[in-house]
Amino acid sequence: MNSILVIGAGRSATALINYVLKEAEKYGWSVTVADADPELAAKKINNHPNGRSAWLDVLKVNDRHDLISRADVVVSMLPAHLHLEVAHDCIRLKKHLITASYVSKEMYQLGDEARKRDLIFMGEMGLDPGIDHMSAMQKIHELKELGATIKTFRSFTGGLVAPESDDNPWHYKFTWNPRNVVLAGQGTAQYLENGKYKYIPYNRLFKRYRTVDIPGMGDYEVYANRDSLLYREVYGLSGIPNIMRGTLRNVGFCDAWNALVKIGLTDGSYPIHDSEKLTYLQLMEAFISGSQEGSVKDRIARMLGEEPNSDVMSKLEWLGLFKNKKIKLPNATPALILEHLLLDKWKLRRLEKDMIIMQHEFEYELEGKEHITLSTLVMKGTRRRDTAMSRLVGLPMGIFVKFVMLGKITATGVNIPVMPEVYNPVLEELKEFGVTFKETNRTL
Amino acid sequence: MNSILVIGAGRSATALINYVLKEAEKYGWSVTVADADPELAAKKINNHPNGRSAWLDVLKVNDRHDLISRADVVVSMLPAHLHLEVAHDCIRLKKHLITASYVSKEMYQLGDEARKRDLIFMGEMGLDPGIDHMSAMQKIHELKELGATIKTFRSFTGGLVAPESDDNPWHYKFTWNPRNVVLAGQGTAQYLENGKYKYIPYNRLFKRYRTVDIPGMGDYEVYANRDSLLYREVYGLSGIPNIMRGTLRNVGFCDAWNALVKIGLTDGSYPIHDSEKLTYLQLMEAFISGSQEGSVKDRIARMLGEEPNSDVMSKLEWLGLFKNKKIKLPNATPALILEHLLLDKWKLRRLEKDMIIMQHEFEYELEGKEHITLSTLVMKGTRRRDTAMSRLVGLPMGIFVKFVMLGKITATGVNIPVMPEVYNPVLEELKEFGVTFKETNRTL
Repeated sequence: MNSILVIGAGRSATALINYVLKEAEKYGWSVTVADADPELAAKKINNHPNGRSAWLDVLKVNDRHDLISRADVVVSMLPAHLHLEVAHDCIRLKKHLITASYVSKEMYQLGDEARKRDLIFMGEMGLDPGIDHMSAMQKIHELKELGATIKTFRSFTGGLVAPESDDNPWHYKFTWNPRNVVLAGQGTAQYLENGKYKYIPYNRLFKRYRTVDIPGMGDYEVYANRDSLLYREVYGLSGIPNIMRGTLRNVGFCDAWNALVKIGLTDGSYPIHDSEKLTYLQLMEAFISGSQEGSVKDRIARMLGEEPNSDVMSKLEWLGLFKNKKIKLPNATPALILEHLLLDKWKLRRLEKDMIIMQHEFEYELEGKEHITLSTLVMKGTRRRDTAMSRLVGLPMGIFVKFVMLGKITATGVNIPVMPEVYNPVLEELKEFGVTFKETNRTL
Repeated sequence: MNSILVIGAGRSATALINYVLKEAEKYGWSVTVADADPELAAKKINNHPNGRSAWLDVLKVNDRHDLISRADVVVSMLPAHLHLEVAHDCIRLKKHLITASYVSKEMYQLGDEARKRDLIFMGEMGLDPGIDHMSAMQKIHELKELGATIKTFRSFTGGLVAPESDDNPWHYKFTWNPRNVVLAGQGTAQYLENGKYKYIPYNRLFKRYRTVDIPGMGDYEVYANRDSLLYREVYGLSGIPNIMRGTLRNVGFCDAWNALVKIGLTDGSYPIHDSEKLTYLQLMEAFISGSQEGSVKDRIARMLGEEPNSDVMSKLEWLGLFKNKKIKLPNATPALILEHLLLDKWKLRRLEKDMIIMQHEFEYELEGKEHITLSTLVMKGTRRRDTAMSRLVGLPMGIFVKFVMLGKITATGVNIPVMPEVYNPVLEELKEFGVTFKETNRTL
């Protein structure tokens, strides 16, 4: 094997591309980066001797086949819904496939086909999902080997802004897909507490956050993810009484986001009439009844049960929601309007740093004693072009690509990285890039 | 024309069937009532000389064709999603079609085909939609002919329990599809106020009810319907600054229903784990965090911001939500569990009466003065087998069938009853059945 194809050269692919180019130099591989924007692909290759860029409209079947047929390992950085087409090609052309996206049911159904052809299709190989699986599984296997009974597993991740670049009242900036941030949590979050299923509907999700201490960093808020129960079996934690996955945000975020939910600004299901003609203030007014007294801001505050100068209200005001500035987006849903507003307000500037925090909590019984172990990763980026987010998504993929190229992976079929032969070498090499989990232990 | 086919013999078809049988006797028509349950159909015909019953599995194309081909006018009382199949048959076999359901986009697309064949496909010919369209349009046309400028149109309807049969703290019993009651309002309600679009997301819908006075009946609560803007053009009210449609409920209902929404009990999108093994109390516990103190009821009250003995809490308690009684429904969504519980608790008993209230509010300018006209219908049933609901759904359909049979309708294509040649004779004849709107006028 000597050829790697990376499909998609967007911002999230930079760390991956840089890593595989460096390894390609060492092992004499060739790396092709294909994108709908060939200049972007060329820029990412940056004249590296082992790299070449290619123009690819991924919906053009022949072009796609042509590129894939010349590769040994394919990495898809495409939007999640496009992976399946690539996966079918990889089955037909007998190529390994790696993505950072959640593995869909349809993708899992290709498992037998992939296994028959001795191929590995590895999904959820980024940060969250990705590093969360690997670091949790390493600890879970370690505890089980010690003979521990795991009673609680909680795992929280946040893509945040580094404290030194944090200069807004929300203490948040975008470092990943803004649309996903706006729509986060819609549906019902489910988790397990004392052996009982718990449900949090969207209308209460951001009210029912919990506060967690991140050692060395202080308090953060966590709201529950929808998928807490999804990995119970895969992680080998079938009988566990407490399991929860959640998203980390800075203190104060959840109450203010809850206000946006309550107003109706996170709804992506219907367009606002004449949205291009309205101002943000008029939009806010459209969400309250006209029969009350006072300014729009006062009426919104009353509707939310907030004082007009509360922290929550000042966060809404800072966003410009009470300004007579035109929205200018035609036929836009509330969620789209909010996304565009936030894109401007929550922009990570050129020299600003993001920060990833991931923390697993394990409570377990060992030799008659109750233990709590926190396993915490804190990592900062250096600037907008080099975020911790893109490194932590790209590096695990790149490292795994290397091990596949070197023939060191025996697993076949459709997988997520929960097996020692994957997580051990990948986590080990990640340490060289500063990706280290610190453990805090205490006995109850 | 001498043959009428009624498809569907359920409870909502009784008044319709009785009406057309009586008219059939007068005019020498034959009436066929077809149902998947032939005994039910026979019971509804009750040996009437002009009637016959038929067994019909509506998904069996040949049987359906056979029955439809022998009719002149077809009335479909099927669930809404099944009308379209029948409509295609009616196009092919050249038959008129009448339903009480909302006209879907797909149904409207059959308009040209129906018109070409001189057929009328009349939808929304029941109560709401149906009598609301007819009574509103009659008044709107009357006001326009007087030269009035209509500034406000609001229309509220409620299928309620009659005061003399009202013996529960919710002051509500089911007289129509319980599932629709449980899922009512999901999405975002839209209406117009002072020329501005207003939006109420589901999470605030039942908090933002208004109180209206029904002359002679007292105060009721109204929550906004999703479709307030849908009929603006059809009603000829394009430039109107205030338009709203809503649902009437007794005082105290909306706050308590809002509690069910907030808890998460109206969500039909996911199944509760092990629902058949849980009790209602355990289900309630699953919606609150286990880290708090007090009984489940106290904790729910705290979460809702209610005193444990408030009106809202006593309504929840009356439903049995804090009882250790098994749910017994496997794989059920919260909404289904709630529906089954309410089916028992909100059952209209044999000798109990329902009550329909419909009220239109018109504000208009005429000869330099501002007027308000309320047009109010209050009608009670006599017992469970003869609800005002089933009469007010069935009679307009039956009366319209008669006029079609007598060749008195010139309109063709897909329609709703907004034209004088339909609403005038139908409303006129409805008066014989006690369906009269009382008008209250005042000048501002």
